[in-house]
Amino acid sequence: MSTTMGTGVPPEWELHPQLAADTVCAGNLPLAQVLVHRDANFPWLVLVPRRPGAVEIIDLDVADQHQLTDEVARVAKALRVLTQCDKLNVAAIGNVVPQLHVHIVARRRTDPAWPRPVWGVVPARAYDPAELAAFVAAVRAQFNF
Amino acid sequence: MSTTMGTGVPPEWELHPQLAADTVCAGNLPLAQVLVHRDANFPWLVLVPRRPGAVEIIDLDVADQHQLTDEVARVAKALRVLTQCDKLNVAAIGNVVPQLHVHIVARRRTDPAWPRPVWGVVPARAYDPAELAAFVAAVRAQFNF
Repeated sequence: MSTTMGTGVPPEWELHPQLAADTVCAGNLPLAQVLVHRDANFPWLVLVPRRPGAVEIIDLDVADQHQLTDEVARVAKALRVLTQCDKLNVAAIGNVVPQLHVHIVARRRTDPAWPRPVWGVVPARAYDPAELAAFVAAVRAQFNF
Repeated sequence: MSTTMGTGVPPEWELHPQLAADTVCAGNLPLAQVLVHRDANFPWLVLVPRRPGAVEIIDLDVADQHQLTDEVARVAKALRVLTQCDKLNVAAIGNVVPQLHVHIVARRRTDPAWPRPVWGVVPARAYDPAELAAFVAAVRAQFNF
């Protein structure tokens, strides 16, 4: 968080450096930034509400909580259209990176972690750069980014 | 799901038997049933919207999605009051039990899975019956069940 105490200027939102390192930014919805996780094991998007200091969902006001729900639903539907997945996993964990972020992962019965959740089960696998670029482009097309 | 095709009677909602086996029912919020997970490793509640056939959050209509968000927030706040936890984990996974359910887990830096998510990391630990009864009573008191 920026230190702006006493200036009257609200702190600016910045993406946590760990999230920035692990993802590619696809674009911005009204509340949240849409990130594509660099783990090629799973089609995996992350939504990060642009609210400085938010750690828990309940740190957001009720209007923002509903907006986040709407954006999670929009991303989940887009991911299902893109991947024809068997199941969506939606989670706000944040034990390692405290900045509030919501994982939306498209799961297939044939993926390397199925049926377990995706965290800590198999090592992340790097995308082929062209494959990552194509997936990011497909995500952007879903949202007209 | 009940088979009521052609009768005009909507199918009744029933709790999935695996969720019934793993939890104690604390009571009902307007949309979702509040369950206490029998794993003593973590203070762990589960919300199950009483909507027959719902598997994904996006299977709910928008009003129900917002209501579920409100109930998740209410449960998260109650759990934080009860446990003084370090972090809340909120997740809809459902790879094993398809009935839509949302996990709300109170995490502590000293718990046996920290900082990993709770699934599949350590074996479930049975509660002492008096300890479980006390926790269920404390949850019910939070909601006036």
